[in-house]
Amino acid sequence: LKDKRRGKQTVQLSAPPYIIGAYTIAGPLEARGPLGECFDAIAEDGMYGEKSFEKAEAKMMEHAVTEVLRKTANLPEYVDYFVASDLLDQIVISNTTATKFPIPFLGMYSACSATALCASVAAMLIDGGYASKVAIATSSHNSAAERQYRYPNEYGMQRPPYSQWTATGAVAALIADSGEGPRITYCTHGQVIETGITDPFNMGGAMAPAALDTIIQHFEDTSRGPEYYDQIVTGDLGQFGHQLLKELAKDQVGVEFPHNLSDCGIMLYDRDQGVDSGGSGCACSGLVVFSKLYNDLRRGTISKLLLVATGALHSPTLCHQGESIPSIAHAVAIER
Amino acid sequence: LKDKRRGKQTVQLSAPPYIIGAYTIAGPLEARGPLGECFDAIAEDGMYGEKSFEKAEAKMMEHAVTEVLRKTANLPEYVDYFVASDLLDQIVISNTTATKFPIPFLGMYSACSATALCASVAAMLIDGGYASKVAIATSSHNSAAERQYRYPNEYGMQRPPYSQWTATGAVAALIADSGEGPRITYCTHGQVIETGITDPFNMGGAMAPAALDTIIQHFEDTSRGPEYYDQIVTGDLGQFGHQLLKELAKDQVGVEFPHNLSDCGIMLYDRDQGVDSGGSGCACSGLVVFSKLYNDLRRGTISKLLLVATGALHSPTLCHQGESIPSIAHAVAIER
Repeated sequence: LKDKRRGKQTVQLSAPPYIIGAYTIAGPLEARGPLGECFDAIAEDGMYGEKSFEKAEAKMMEHAVTEVLRKTANLPEYVDYFVASDLLDQIVISNTTATKFPIPFLGMYSACSATALCASVAAMLIDGGYASKVAIATSSHNSAAERQYRYPNEYGMQRPPYSQWTATGAVAALIADSGEGPRITYCTHGQVIETGITDPFNMGGAMAPAALDTIIQHFEDTSRGPEYYDQIVTGDLGQFGHQLLKELAKDQVGVEFPHNLSDCGIMLYDRDQGVDSGGSGCACSGLVVFSKLYNDLRRGTISKLLLVATGALHSPTLCHQGESIPSIAHAVAIER
Repeated sequence: LKDKRRGKQTVQLSAPPYIIGAYTIAGPLEARGPLGECFDAIAEDGMYGEKSFEKAEAKMMEHAVTEVLRKTANLPEYVDYFVASDLLDQIVISNTTATKFPIPFLGMYSACSATALCASVAAMLIDGGYASKVAIATSSHNSAAERQYRYPNEYGMQRPPYSQWTATGAVAALIADSGEGPRITYCTHGQVIETGITDPFNMGGAMAPAALDTIIQHFEDTSRGPEYYDQIVTGDLGQFGHQLLKELAKDQVGVEFPHNLSDCGIMLYDRDQGVDSGGSGCACSGLVVFSKLYNDLRRGTISKLLLVATGALHSPTLCHQGESIPSIAHAVAIER
């Protein structure tokens, strides 16, 4: 075992790969939120010129991958791997997108923590010497995800105040062994945490313990503390989960975060947009990290970011059988 | 880029990792097939003492992982990653199993090609210096998969003769940087192939072109030919897909396989077991490769095996919307 791996769950990349380009396309609600100006493209409506929500989402992901390759002046033939994930059964959006690009494909599933999982696998493929360039992509679509995981939006179900809004959008990034851009320096892969939560609306509550577990492990493994980072962003805990994370950190492990802890689910929307506790979905952390935060890292406004993408591994089938929702969080450190 | 990667889609492992242990648990039908004697354990019935098919499958995967750790005298605390996949939505079997082991978890989805995807990712994590030991697992369950992908078995649907039987069972293997056992020498990751097939019973027809694509790419990248291997096994093409693969190979690229080409979907069952064209599901290639073929490799009966695990990336949602079934195949070379 090389000296790359300092701790139990963290990999230090010996030649930290560069995120040389990113592309974000946001849904209409996301476009009207506080980060509206930061996205590369906007879908005017949720159908995006297609006949189904699923086809709209697939078209968004294809567009994001096409554009990130164009932005970075890369042909798909010179990309070594395409690593992608989404929320839909059989990761059908990723599979469909992969048919459009002649690139070896690795399909991942990790619910809303997909952005960090894909980025970390890409970074290890490059740092391990297996690839020079890896394209990653994730997406989610509110209407497609809600009808699969809970109820079709057309039913007009009442949403409890701690529920979250699955973000609509797609993101892609190109990660490479050379070039310009922020670099992935560490990856901490989470364990799956049993939470006991059976309410499919309570994603924040299910994910907060997993986020804490991975953050604490990351600090232990790297000998870094919360103050090391300019910003620590969790994937999509929402207001409720964010508060819970802070309380758990203080009560269970005595860690108090300085003002650098925030959450993509809170950052993506204004509070008056009717998203209750905040955003969720693979696109949630993707849209925040690969638009505003990526730009901040490139500009130097921030130079040390820890993304802790969280995933509620919710299965409607098992939920209907009375089982609880396990959760996971994967972290990647992105630094100038 | 290190010299590990000789071609467009193939990785050569510089220090080929060892498959130091494997464990297979088979369903009742699989146990009565030609490989019945080779499995480590048998589930007497499909419920496996649980109240649902899904819980039965999860218990099987947990059992397989527990036992492969016991067989190789490893504690989960010393396993660096758990890489798993299954057929069910949200890979719920893998997620549920992961809650039982304190190991960082990487969730994959690649339909029935999961065995090769998980094994290849494990091999690269080890060879890349990120891990010393990686546990992998895959599973499928006929009753759980059929009701999710097609119709509940209780409906008594007529099956066309080219349909395949989703295998019931779970497998786990422990892959390590040292020890005894056959070694993973090359991994060839497939591209996703658009097949135009919309019939959810015709998996063999959908997967054969993907199998051919990956096999030919593997030969090109490694300068090996079909005669190099003692055995080339495709994952689960079945009788129909196996015949189609041989015809496509001859007609499209002029390759004729010697008598070393076989298919796990054909090997797992006797023809009089009522499985029509043969077996399928993540457990199909897993049960064949990690029982008989693994034992053959350990004994030296064969010394060069190419596993080409095939996956039909079938989405019922998109199929209902008129879309076709894309396919993929991943190959791993396993050698003494």
